[in-house]
Amino acid sequence: MRILILGGDGYLGWPTAMYLSRRGHTIGVADSYIKRRWEQELGIEPLFPIRSLPERVQVWEALSGHRVTLFEGDLTDYDFVRRTLDAFRPEAIIHYGEQPSAPFSMMNVERCVQTQVNNVVGTLNVLWAMREVAPACHLVKLGTLGEYGTPNIDIEEGFIEIEHKGRRDVLPYPKQPGSFYHLSKVHDSHNIMFACRVWKLASTDLNQGVVYGLETEETAADPRLATSFHYDSIFGTVLNRFCVQAAAGIPLTVYGQGAQKRGFLNIRDTLRCVELALLHPAAPGQYRVFNQFTEIFSVNELAELVAASARQLGLPGEIQHLRNPRVEKEDHYYQVTNSGLLQLGLRPHRLSNELVDTMLKTVMRFRARIRPEIIRPGVAWHDGDAAAELGPSVGVGSAVGQSA
Amino acid sequence: MRILILGGDGYLGWPTAMYLSRRGHTIGVADSYIKRRWEQELGIEPLFPIRSLPERVQVWEALSGHRVTLFEGDLTDYDFVRRTLDAFRPEAIIHYGEQPSAPFSMMNVERCVQTQVNNVVGTLNVLWAMREVAPACHLVKLGTLGEYGTPNIDIEEGFIEIEHKGRRDVLPYPKQPGSFYHLSKVHDSHNIMFACRVWKLASTDLNQGVVYGLETEETAADPRLATSFHYDSIFGTVLNRFCVQAAAGIPLTVYGQGAQKRGFLNIRDTLRCVELALLHPAAPGQYRVFNQFTEIFSVNELAELVAASARQLGLPGEIQHLRNPRVEKEDHYYQVTNSGLLQLGLRPHRLSNELVDTMLKTVMRFRARIRPEIIRPGVAWHDGDAAAELGPSVGVGSAVGQSA
Repeated sequence: MRILILGGDGYLGWPTAMYLSRRGHTIGVADSYIKRRWEQELGIEPLFPIRSLPERVQVWEALSGHRVTLFEGDLTDYDFVRRTLDAFRPEAIIHYGEQPSAPFSMMNVERCVQTQVNNVVGTLNVLWAMREVAPACHLVKLGTLGEYGTPNIDIEEGFIEIEHKGRRDVLPYPKQPGSFYHLSKVHDSHNIMFACRVWKLASTDLNQGVVYGLETEETAADPRLATSFHYDSIFGTVLNRFCVQAAAGIPLTVYGQGAQKRGFLNIRDTLRCVELALLHPAAPGQYRVFNQFTEIFSVNELAELVAASARQLGLPGEIQHLRNPRVEKEDHYYQVTNSGLLQLGLRPHRLSNELVDTMLKTVMRFRARIRPEIIRPGVAWHDGDAAAELGPSVGVGSAVGQSA
Repeated sequence: MRILILGGDGYLGWPTAMYLSRRGHTIGVADSYIKRRWEQELGIEPLFPIRSLPERVQVWEALSGHRVTLFEGDLTDYDFVRRTLDAFRPEAIIHYGEQPSAPFSMMNVERCVQTQVNNVVGTLNVLWAMREVAPACHLVKLGTLGEYGTPNIDIEEGFIEIEHKGRRDVLPYPKQPGSFYHLSKVHDSHNIMFACRVWKLASTDLNQGVVYGLETEETAADPRLATSFHYDSIFGTVLNRFCVQAAAGIPLTVYGQGAQKRGFLNIRDTLRCVELALLHPAAPGQYRVFNQFTEIFSVNELAELVAASARQLGLPGEIQHLRNPRVEKEDHYYQVTNSGLLQLGLRPHRLSNELVDTMLKTVMRFRARIRPEIIRPGVAWHDGDAAAELGPSVGVGSAVGQSA
């Protein structure tokens, strides 16, 4: 299959490119490297040194014999998108090419607008270019489980049957996203659903949970193929950050009481989920949603798991609760359907003590590169200067709470 | 009350400014005149000659003694928005300042992106500026009834109680908008709802039906105070367009079978609805939705009403069905709650033969200015070149259909 990966330089984009290329698909990757520029602007860097995308493409070809075609440009530039689709003629597009951070989108008006314009316009350009030059192409779009928020009823996969005043309909599931970033994904979902309906495009929207993991089979093959692993307060995700804090011997910082629950998955499962969506494409005119996660944990459960593994390795494994910089329910119902990808054949890599142990040991090899000052949250949802008032507030210690 | 009207140069903005100014409020108007530039680009002009906004502000002050403060700038420029709010210190903002046309947003990728960026970024800037300099201000935002689409259950006012698998919650009403313009309003609604929740802003989202009418008490006082009345296929709304077609002696063009139903209201009721929202503001942290329309009609019912009045005046009053340029259900359930504004005291001006008769007579005075070539739809939802294939397709005649 001819597969174009948008955001091919990212944490998920690059491993996906190698994974699919190794399985015999013809792969193109597109990126503007804007995320690297944002990292520079914010003084953030990934835990491992990351080679440039052209270099990684070259190394991958030398090692595997598989050629990946590189397109350098910005998705907000329609001409670039149209030309790329026209040149590569993809049968499927995997669209990771978006600003991926909630705190980034909440920093200030410029970052908020940048996030929504980058994500919404990029996706609009992809839809219009598909209509113009690749109408039979299947769009696999990375959304987020955070689009749904935390309603008091079960979360279904994109749609819900509602009975109301004696009548029934199946309607888009109501969305209650929790940041301007999550809102941008909701906007995308509505735009894509409409384009599928009106233009008969085919799309799968993967409402993904929080991804964890340092490596995949392909990235582990050579250090020059590593993928961009973030542990900072802007681009880092929670389990990855906990592993880095534990390895550095500093407290694992839980926001608020820590009873908030989220869906999680291993980066290896992300690749498999995307592959399953590609192998079983949506039909023309179909807008299909899968909730892409394998397990639900509370933040406290994750912190406890990592802290326990850390203590086994002789690290302090302390947990510290910070005032929650986000506005979110900390004690809530959370039941989410995820049968779509399981039915297509997903076999989850579940989170285990062994896995955390392996992650910790890998991170410890890069301990000298850890910069604790970029971990502490500096962006608050409710007011302008978060950092100042985010001292320890709830209590320090390793014996706190469990999931609600 | 100190009220800032965004989009003060528009069809609704200018009449609202005079209406509220006459009732003792202190009014500011802001506009970038971008809609006038779009009209020029598309070769469209309103039926009546419209004076510039500075001139209308001057004439209004000379005639009424009420001063309206003018702010010239673009809502997508955050610095302009912040400076305007800081200078005017509004207690309420009425936000009409958006690209208002569905066909405009469907023309091509540039117009689509322009629509979503203009509308979404403008509203984001208003929200951030409110947070920064006017957090107690009440935002009255013009949304559209078209955000909901045509579900097979009753449409409620913004939220719906859902029972699902034995649990209950009140959630945002699912949205199924029908164009990139309508989508921009859905994006706005989600962004505003979030800002109210996180920043404790107060907002009323008026999901308005299709407005009709040539004038209000204030615009009728002097021709120099007229408001921008559009009858073309891009900015014109259906009843206004039918009146112009009837007055010009050309067929009233119904898209498709004409059984599609929509909510409608008189421009005078728009002003009163906005006033009622202002006088009974949302609470801090509240995001409130009113469905703002007074009557539901099918397109055929409107066409018949106008055609009958036209024939009374000796005009042909013919109806012609065109292939529908839009992708929309033409035979559908449509029951919409609108009790919120009625409970606050709205007394609707209902559509009548007399009203249509008056509209027709007024339009006939400007018959020489009517340009039939800008009425025919040139933008199709489903493919690029609409105009060519939009010949008469369903049949011509005045005795067609009734509402489903």
